[in-house]
Amino acid sequence: MLRPAELIQRKRDGEELEPAAIGELILGYARGEVPDYQLAAFCMAVFFRGMTPAETFALTQAMIDSGETIDLATALGRKVVDKHSTGGVGDKTSLAVGPIVAACGVPFGKMSGRGLGHTGGTLDKLESIPGFRTELSVEEFVAQVRDVGVAIVGQTADLVPADKLLYGLRDVTATVDQPSLIAASIMSKKLAGGAQAIVLDVKVGDGAFMKSIDDARRLAETMLALGRQAGREVVCLLTDMDQPLGSAVGNALEVREALETVRGRGPSDFTELVLDASARLLALSDLDIDVAEGRRRAETAVADGSAEQAWWRWIVAQGGTTDESALPTAPVVRRVTASSAGYVTRLGAIRVGLAALHLGAGRRTKADSVDHAVGIVCRAKRGDLVAAGDVLAEVHARDEEAATTAVADVLAAYELGPERPRSRPVLLEIVD
Amino acid sequence: MLRPAELIQRKRDGEELEPAAIGELILGYARGEVPDYQLAAFCMAVFFRGMTPAETFALTQAMIDSGETIDLATALGRKVVDKHSTGGVGDKTSLAVGPIVAACGVPFGKMSGRGLGHTGGTLDKLESIPGFRTELSVEEFVAQVRDVGVAIVGQTADLVPADKLLYGLRDVTATVDQPSLIAASIMSKKLAGGAQAIVLDVKVGDGAFMKSIDDARRLAETMLALGRQAGREVVCLLTDMDQPLGSAVGNALEVREALETVRGRGPSDFTELVLDASARLLALSDLDIDVAEGRRRAETAVADGSAEQAWWRWIVAQGGTTDESALPTAPVVRRVTASSAGYVTRLGAIRVGLAALHLGAGRRTKADSVDHAVGIVCRAKRGDLVAAGDVLAEVHARDEEAATTAVADVLAAYELGPERPRSRPVLLEIVD
Repeated sequence: MLRPAELIQRKRDGEELEPAAIGELILGYARGEVPDYQLAAFCMAVFFRGMTPAETFALTQAMIDSGETIDLATALGRKVVDKHSTGGVGDKTSLAVGPIVAACGVPFGKMSGRGLGHTGGTLDKLESIPGFRTELSVEEFVAQVRDVGVAIVGQTADLVPADKLLYGLRDVTATVDQPSLIAASIMSKKLAGGAQAIVLDVKVGDGAFMKSIDDARRLAETMLALGRQAGREVVCLLTDMDQPLGSAVGNALEVREALETVRGRGPSDFTELVLDASARLLALSDLDIDVAEGRRRAETAVADGSAEQAWWRWIVAQGGTTDESALPTAPVVRRVTASSAGYVTRLGAIRVGLAALHLGAGRRTKADSVDHAVGIVCRAKRGDLVAAGDVLAEVHARDEEAATTAVADVLAAYELGPERPRSRPVLLEIVD
Repeated sequence: MLRPAELIQRKRDGEELEPAAIGELILGYARGEVPDYQLAAFCMAVFFRGMTPAETFALTQAMIDSGETIDLATALGRKVVDKHSTGGVGDKTSLAVGPIVAACGVPFGKMSGRGLGHTGGTLDKLESIPGFRTELSVEEFVAQVRDVGVAIVGQTADLVPADKLLYGLRDVTATVDQPSLIAASIMSKKLAGGAQAIVLDVKVGDGAFMKSIDDARRLAETMLALGRQAGREVVCLLTDMDQPLGSAVGNALEVREALETVRGRGPSDFTELVLDASARLLALSDLDIDVAEGRRRAETAVADGSAEQAWWRWIVAQGGTTDESALPTAPVVRRVTASSAGYVTRLGAIRVGLAALHLGAGRRTKADSVDHAVGIVCRAKRGDLVAAGDVLAEVHARDEEAATTAVADVLAAYELGPERPRSRPVLLEIVD
């Protein structure tokens, strides 16, 4: 018989729990048999004691077992790839990577959750495209990956329901930032989603969950081990989130930037990450090529327009309009200008993210609705030299009042100095 | 605005919380505004991070503020004393101390909770007396302390309701054994109960919550500080719980032993503790005497029969019968005999307690009912020399089957050896 209080106590006292015990606890919780206060205490004990790899895998497996799973390999008769990011400010990578990879002939299938955040999640970004449907059935999802080559949809309620419950609980009990719990949450969804090869983008820095490269590396290694133990191919990229990724922060603004990047006209840091992630997905795919060849193919797909064609095939397949001018725009656009000359030595990701959140681009609570039009475009990035009066950024706001606040917030996110800062690439490290 | 998740996180990260924040959290919980899963996570964070004295006092005060309080000093126009024990096997001290102190002219008023335990709590013990009422109103309680000089009653639902909720939650989330939480739980009830002077008996050893003298001392110091900060006089006794206290373990058996002790015919270890606790209560009272004089008066009250008279006044006041033969007795009494000669080197309190629990003397869950008649009487205690075949103990059981199991259990609790063990007094240390 399961005795949750005993398991909590054993974890609290630093014991390693048997996989079966963790399975019973999590499945009991998912069935509503173990109350949330016991899981809350358990998660806090895990926060302090951690979990062994075996425990973390058992947790991941139990969360997967709490719902349905999708077997894309069997459904398509070939390897499907997926990409996931731990989230950051201006992160629209999947939107560009999906069509690029599809253009190279590799099916890309991603199920995305709907979390809280400074800006909307991947689903919110896509929903800024008029007509775009994110709520596909599993059958529709599988068919689209097979027939169109790319699908990015909302996670169905049947997929990893225990994670949804547990994440909601962790969010209100200060137990979110624990590596094993984060890894199990992410990997349970990725593994249940059915892709055979996964590129994980672990963001590091001021605007990310993981503030230090060491923490990010630990999380990456944990997720890598979980994926491998489940028989999947996984590569982790540790990437910079000290400043926003690319220029655009805000839903429709980011969709536009992703499209421009697929067209080869994106910001350099974002383009670099998109091409690298695409190359690694291609190298993990059934094309039997290496990363260098993957990179060449990704660059070619962008250059020859096939990536853009894949973009539109994908958008249309999910009901989105092909009329670019139909993307919502904000009524008020204000410039943020430099008051003095200098190098941009810092562009605080979290400050920009919070400014976007205040504009209405993100969610504070689950009940909040997202304003797809608003956001920030960072014209100057770290290392750029600006003159006094130069445009640092643009604020896209719903009204003048919101714009005024955001301009001040964004200005405060910029630090200028006389010396060019040390260059920091977007791609910090590969864990594979 | 109270943000419980933020408080949990700050405590988790080792910050000291402001008294007002702790107050809001606890009172919000008591009002049902803060959900139990947040309190569960908070308690687990406290388990790992501890609480400062200021935090512990704020917690105690918030629990008191969650309900009504009793002002015995104003009601009686004089100082009332109280005694509390952290609980152990065979601990019937309050039953004897109350009438002894009352016989010396000092009012004794105790409200007692109804917890789980190997044997029943103080209330269960008293309820083995036919007719005895433990559920008195606050008015009845105050009147009885004033008019009879002694009252021991069940804690009313209005007294420290937050503690009732929190204790129930801690019990199922492995967060019971944390010194600040224990101290606040005990002291909030003692302070709300209204006595001006309190003797706390912290049990140490195998059969107690606190296994080491260091842990017991820490708990004692924490409770002492809480009491003093609230303007009460408090003394803590650290007392031995490696073996059961006295001889009798089980409700009616313990009532009989308490009465015998009030008559001056109790077991030596129990008598010593009763007289010492009584002496210290008298020294804290408004009699303006020291502990030595308190001891003399307590001994006199036992010797001259005035303590027994106070016992009967008290029992009658609460509706109990004066017919000693009406106390329930078990149908099956079996002897536990020594299979060899030797000194009793050990008599495991926890084993005896569990044997009593299996006999039906205590509660495993709140829903269990207590069998008042059953229990164990330990005739031989640590340091006693026995011959093969001598009676070590008696088992009082509901039926033969239960008796057989208990006899084996009790036998296993005794360890005999060729050498007299080092003497260990019942009173280990005074913290004042």
